[in-house]
Amino acid sequence: MSRELTVGVAQLGPIARSETRAEVVDRLFTLLHEAHDQRVELLVYPELALTTFFPRWWFEDEAELDSFYETEDPGTPGTATEELFKTATEMGIGIHLGYAELTADRHRYNTAILTERDGSLVGKFRKVHIPGHEDHEPHRRFQHLERRYFEESQEGFQVWRAFDGIVGMAICNDRRWPETYRVMGLSGAELVLIGYNTPLHYPPDPTQDPLQAFHNHLVMQSGAYQNGMWVVGAAKGGTEEGCELLAHSCIIAPSGQIVAQAVTNGDELIRARIDFDMCRNYKETLFDFDRYRRPEAYRQIIERKGPVPPP
Amino acid sequence: MSRELTVGVAQLGPIARSETRAEVVDRLFTLLHEAHDQRVELLVYPELALTTFFPRWWFEDEAELDSFYETEDPGTPGTATEELFKTATEMGIGIHLGYAELTADRHRYNTAILTERDGSLVGKFRKVHIPGHEDHEPHRRFQHLERRYFEESQEGFQVWRAFDGIVGMAICNDRRWPETYRVMGLSGAELVLIGYNTPLHYPPDPTQDPLQAFHNHLVMQSGAYQNGMWVVGAAKGGTEEGCELLAHSCIIAPSGQIVAQAVTNGDELIRARIDFDMCRNYKETLFDFDRYRRPEAYRQIIERKGPVPPP
Repeated sequence: MSRELTVGVAQLGPIARSETRAEVVDRLFTLLHEAHDQRVELLVYPELALTTFFPRWWFEDEAELDSFYETEDPGTPGTATEELFKTATEMGIGIHLGYAELTADRHRYNTAILTERDGSLVGKFRKVHIPGHEDHEPHRRFQHLERRYFEESQEGFQVWRAFDGIVGMAICNDRRWPETYRVMGLSGAELVLIGYNTPLHYPPDPTQDPLQAFHNHLVMQSGAYQNGMWVVGAAKGGTEEGCELLAHSCIIAPSGQIVAQAVTNGDELIRARIDFDMCRNYKETLFDFDRYRRPEAYRQIIERKGPVPPP
Repeated sequence: MSRELTVGVAQLGPIARSETRAEVVDRLFTLLHEAHDQRVELLVYPELALTTFFPRWWFEDEAELDSFYETEDPGTPGTATEELFKTATEMGIGIHLGYAELTADRHRYNTAILTERDGSLVGKFRKVHIPGHEDHEPHRRFQHLERRYFEESQEGFQVWRAFDGIVGMAICNDRRWPETYRVMGLSGAELVLIGYNTPLHYPPDPTQDPLQAFHNHLVMQSGAYQNGMWVVGAAKGGTEEGCELLAHSCIIAPSGQIVAQAVTNGDELIRARIDFDMCRNYKETLFDFDRYRRPEAYRQIIERKGPVPPP
């Protein structure tokens, strides 16, 4: 059994608020066909890949807010993505796609779905670390109301045996937290898929603005290295409804090295042939957790939420 | 009260096995005087700064092994470092110094001591993550017998109020583990001091050899950023008894940016004026732990030592 896999990232440029699902899916199709031409077996679309990044606006009309959410799993019959997933299955390509999920009992999540090459469902993941704020902050030119429009995942991080490896998911802000990679690393994750929409401007501390690309790679590269896993970052980029988004999609090896990187802010496919067995170089040596970790020294990580400074 | 501090790193070139404590201390003095000229208030010497990196050899003679350890705290009367610490106190310079500690009841630790500008003891830290191996591995040109020659710290990571900030310590391999920074970050650490001796050649996986400098900075930069803290890395560099050591000492801001970096493999002072209040840019925004962390999703980090893959 092969332990290699060709992974593609379908970076997306801006999605206008007026763009319909059908128009977006057309763009996803174009990238799918390009991925097929390049022998991709797993194609990773970004977070909230079917709509504009709507948490930048304050909505008072719930029906208007609802219009950005999917009420059924992408790919199921009758959805705008039915043909996309069907075609991917015909091509033997697995799909990772981020979307806003509205459940039947009206819970809202920032979710990603992952399908295998044969079209079967691998799993769904709901974002664990919801950034931004809950209330209208009029001083912001753009809101970041994820904490109003999404609930935190209750399931946390999971991994699945898929694509002949062990695969996990995280979404956007999850990637900044080392616990994200470590929890999945402690389930043997060999590949973690991460979609993101990251505004370049961060109103609470604009000194971070020029560092966004550096921070983006820093957290994913260190997560990959410190857990001996492949990490895939799929971005939305460009100027979307007047808001600049970080692109910089990339595929990162268990060494922490970037092996493929997007060079535009728009729709762009990148790909890499990844070898799951490369994870062993790290998981079985320097980061042999069974031999070297010291969980008894880490208790504060779960016993504390916020910092407790010394007296 | 000022929340700024001038921190220096006293990187050391190789220390020969034949070098006496007095000869090494002469070198430490030279760097101390240079630090004083440059208005340094806290000077950070590396791990095991008083001897060669002796875990590279297999010792059967316990007296020979003992000769590399200190049986009293550095700086105490009668020790080889008494005058060094005394002079530092006269200069108003705090000292961080790594050394091999042999306790009265014959426990062995890889330890660092930290003193304040007035010479008072801030604290001692014993290495938590001991790398390498326990037994003689004759296939290695150099051994890495830290797991034979040092016990793991039982106290774990601590922080202290010192230098008008909150300061912690870690040693060498500790810096590769994100838990190190996080545990101290959860005690409000604003500055973490890390000495290291890192051989460039890693026999269990030599593909890592050309990446040593990259990995060294990657883990310290991500630890700094993800916890909004200053991180100081003090290296031993150069070819020591035929074994090449990574230099690349550095001072890293809470942004993850390197603000000062050694450019030689030898004895070299670097310094930076650090502002503890810069930590707030991160600790109170993106990494406001109280607001954004999800400890209930991190349980595996302490419940598991090694990975438990899915069935």
